[in-house]
Amino acid sequence: MQELLSRFDAGDPVALGKLLKEVENGTSSGKEALRCTASRQGRAHVVGITGPPGAGKSTLTAKLSKRWAEAGREVGIVCVDPTSPFSGGALLGDRIRMLELSSFPNVFIKSLATRGSLGGMAASTADIIQLMDAYGKEVVVVETVGVGQVEFDVMDLSDTVVLVNVPGLGDSIQALKAGILEIADIFVINQADRPGAEDSVRDLRQMLADRKETGWLWPVVKTVATRGEGIDRLAEAIESHRAYLKREQLWEEKRCRRNRQRLMQEMDRLFRQHVLTRIRTDPTARALFEEVEKGTQDPYSAARHLFQEIVN
Amino acid sequence: MQELLSRFDAGDPVALGKLLKEVENGTSSGKEALRCTASRQGRAHVVGITGPPGAGKSTLTAKLSKRWAEAGREVGIVCVDPTSPFSGGALLGDRIRMLELSSFPNVFIKSLATRGSLGGMAASTADIIQLMDAYGKEVVVVETVGVGQVEFDVMDLSDTVVLVNVPGLGDSIQALKAGILEIADIFVINQADRPGAEDSVRDLRQMLADRKETGWLWPVVKTVATRGEGIDRLAEAIESHRAYLKREQLWEEKRCRRNRQRLMQEMDRLFRQHVLTRIRTDPTARALFEEVEKGTQDPYSAARHLFQEIVN
Repeated sequence: MQELLSRFDAGDPVALGKLLKEVENGTSSGKEALRCTASRQGRAHVVGITGPPGAGKSTLTAKLSKRWAEAGREVGIVCVDPTSPFSGGALLGDRIRMLELSSFPNVFIKSLATRGSLGGMAASTADIIQLMDAYGKEVVVVETVGVGQVEFDVMDLSDTVVLVNVPGLGDSIQALKAGILEIADIFVINQADRPGAEDSVRDLRQMLADRKETGWLWPVVKTVATRGEGIDRLAEAIESHRAYLKREQLWEEKRCRRNRQRLMQEMDRLFRQHVLTRIRTDPTARALFEEVEKGTQDPYSAARHLFQEIVN
Repeated sequence: MQELLSRFDAGDPVALGKLLKEVENGTSSGKEALRCTASRQGRAHVVGITGPPGAGKSTLTAKLSKRWAEAGREVGIVCVDPTSPFSGGALLGDRIRMLELSSFPNVFIKSLATRGSLGGMAASTADIIQLMDAYGKEVVVVETVGVGQVEFDVMDLSDTVVLVNVPGLGDSIQALKAGILEIADIFVINQADRPGAEDSVRDLRQMLADRKETGWLWPVVKTVATRGEGIDRLAEAIESHRAYLKREQLWEEKRCRRNRQRLMQEMDRLFRQHVLTRIRTDPTARALFEEVEKGTQDPYSAARHLFQEIVN
């Protein structure tokens, strides 16, 4: 383990890959790695890329990353794929586009596909970002498809959230999950060579015009990711947002909040574990729990009672 | 309070409305009402209706409820509306359609619109269902628009989940949030007089054919809610699902699980409250918390340390 950490410190990508695996699996070596690197995080610019399936997120991520890699920047990519048996997961083409990047020694790609434990996915992503950050990645791109809470949680880990859409949203703009519109910092209309692109841009701008003024004007960028069009403008927008965050002290604020959340989440996890053990081993607690299950005892009184037994 | 509860027990809708308000606001009277009615819940059939904005959920809810009300059944409706400043909330027309129902003495409608505290919305909905159930409602319809985790949490409170869609989904079926497809028990293609309805039905059926067999065959029902077409078939499908749940002991199982969840959630809430108080009042805990915020202390070690201080 110590040797692995030394190689990690020396910038060995194989060590990074191994430690990421440990962290993903929640092993004690993984926790150890997180402990050792905790004080070295917070430097990377975390860029979240989200949007509906088929919007071209993977292609955009690949083109952006290639651009940064060619400029000599250290890039980490985390593909969060909370797929279900029905959605079928990422298309093969996406994966191939990503693979092209592996020829760059300064790009590291980590895929994260947990089926089931959705709550754990955001926690895992946070850990992976931390490790990439501590390793020396200057930009960490987190790409995720828009599915419910996972999307929100994962985007909450990002400094800059890029929401990718395609033309033809038209009047269905309200069908977009409202919350995601609100957390996006940069809007992309990809496949902007398709009919309706101008309408989509106009609709978005109109909607954004109603927003209350802040120091940040939400840019709407048109791209044709497959041909590499608009990537420069998007990269510039991301860079401006980074400068804005630093200028307004939001950079530090976001890091504080995220660290706080991780502490609280870990506390919650420990508490749940403790409660479940208690219910398994203490007959009185177990009886109360079962009464609540059967509906003969109300959950509020029972919770208060059990809580007082556990915490004093 | 005692008088209010007596009137509630006697079936006074004004008392129901007042207690629902207390519960929604989380007052001590509300908690008291939940305590007193805890052992009387579990009889109502909770039917969740969800789907994208504009699919016709409110109209369907209104038509179904009217049908049940005319048959003399006690109906409760909970409209969960986690709107944001951007989505704009329910359309006036929906509300008017709902208002028509108020002429039925056996229908009670409760709207729940919390802006912000999304976590609390599912908890509030659970409380409201409990109270309607204890009051004697035989069917409680929970209608919610599909936005992320709220939708999942709210649908998780339902015995029967109806997913409403409109024609023209075509190849964008994968764009539907995958998870919601999986928790739906009944699929509705509303506005089935629009072109593409047959294609949508076929696509859905094809997808469902791949599912592993259970005792339940997911029905796909075509409706034109505005003209009342297909409502009878939908009501039948809902009734069959209820019979299926009862037959397979899933009815009791769901109630057990939901009661368990409410207990655990309340415990979590008490714990968080306790931790925050501790951090505010205990200088050592506060110092540790701040180190985590600044990133000089890793959250895992800090959590373990703080947890051991609080729980022993």
